[in-house]
Amino acid sequence: MSAAAGKLIGVGVGPGDPELVTLKALRAFGEADVIAFFAKVGNESHSRAIAAQHLRAGVTELPLLYPVTTELPKCSNHYRDAIREFYDGAAAAIAEHLDRGSTVVVLCEGDPLFYGSYMHLHTRLAPRFPTEVIAGVTGMSGCWSAAGMPIAQGDDVFTVLPATLPEDELARRLADADAAVVMKVGRHLPKLRRALKCSGRLERAIYVERGTMADAKMIPLAAKTDNEAAYFAVVLVPGWEQRP
Amino acid sequence: MSAAAGKLIGVGVGPGDPELVTLKALRAFGEADVIAFFAKVGNESHSRAIAAQHLRAGVTELPLLYPVTTELPKCSNHYRDAIREFYDGAAAAIAEHLDRGSTVVVLCEGDPLFYGSYMHLHTRLAPRFPTEVIAGVTGMSGCWSAAGMPIAQGDDVFTVLPATLPEDELARRLADADAAVVMKVGRHLPKLRRALKCSGRLERAIYVERGTMADAKMIPLAAKTDNEAAYFAVVLVPGWEQRP
Repeated sequence: MSAAAGKLIGVGVGPGDPELVTLKALRAFGEADVIAFFAKVGNESHSRAIAAQHLRAGVTELPLLYPVTTELPKCSNHYRDAIREFYDGAAAAIAEHLDRGSTVVVLCEGDPLFYGSYMHLHTRLAPRFPTEVIAGVTGMSGCWSAAGMPIAQGDDVFTVLPATLPEDELARRLADADAAVVMKVGRHLPKLRRALKCSGRLERAIYVERGTMADAKMIPLAAKTDNEAAYFAVVLVPGWEQRP
Repeated sequence: MSAAAGKLIGVGVGPGDPELVTLKALRAFGEADVIAFFAKVGNESHSRAIAAQHLRAGVTELPLLYPVTTELPKCSNHYRDAIREFYDGAAAAIAEHLDRGSTVVVLCEGDPLFYGSYMHLHTRLAPRFPTEVIAGVTGMSGCWSAAGMPIAQGDDVFTVLPATLPEDELARRLADADAAVVMKVGRHLPKLRRALKCSGRLERAIYVERGTMADAKMIPLAAKTDNEAAYFAVVLVPGWEQRP
């Protein structure tokens, strides 16, 4: 007979600053038999780097290494198959530990269920094992806090948009919201700039790179003269037009 | 000659669970000469209740008491004048401490710059005093984490809507987003229910009350038979339709 099943804990480690980790996350790290984290093959894991100073020495680590990320078009069947296979394998590796009765913490940048990879594991494992999700500070909260910029207030409509959307759709959605955060800016910056101008939001837009890191870069987008942008850069468009 | 000016720190204390406070917030509590917090006259302060166990015994407390909140229509001039006067007075009370060189922490439920009262103080004081904002876990992250419900993924468009919007606008915006959180549900629940049905989102909607409290209440909205709803209840509409 097998031992009692373990527990899966998805833990938000926040936007980057190791001090923006919660007490609840720390408690989970202390209870963990296994610490799992995502990373791209050959790269350091961001979530592990954030949590590193809080982890117990000698705890078992389980790196989950993405086989592909931005190299293939997302709409391709090959990408879909590769990424599904990867998540199936990652979930199976975690399930082995859970079957043995271990507590497995999955480190998640930002918040686990808000645009995070953890949710691929959650949907595969939560039906079979006891599961807990510990909310974290999102990357975008980290960005507007570092910028000291109120983002939304009162009855504002706030929206999160991927810069991958077509230009006319970006412009329409930007004009339709009071406040917005645009993610995945990278090579879409020239298109995003045009959409912001067309929607009358360019003057309010702030470009943010590595929001809560020591080397954060924040400038009004209108003042940014080049079109170089990191994949994980965001553009903040604050709302709250009617301030009392 | 006056002493060097103090420092204003807006601190997010998270959605309600005292364990969802960050290490950075704890450090700020330790450095504070004065702890300020909002409350409605005659009510306990939510943000103070969350932080209470982490505060230094004997620290100076500065309650900021709202004179009016939901009693007056928000569009009335009287409401606007009363609330502006209140924020002016609250900022002046904090400025007195800052002028004396004190470090003043303002406790903020959730995240300070995301639909929070703190930003009214921030805009008044940040131009005059050194200011820091410490991001917090938002109320909505607390809700979807407690519900174990992935909210948005990949290229999803995510939007936050106040239930105060007209019914047709709610329906249009719900249909136009992949994922949504509707705030300030309260007496707007019957209207919101119709808008969700009209936009084809009712089956996915989850009603959440006191999301990260021990007595949290979460049910599929379609299964909720009454129209009783707390003012601070939220409705979550998860996206991520195309799961690999």
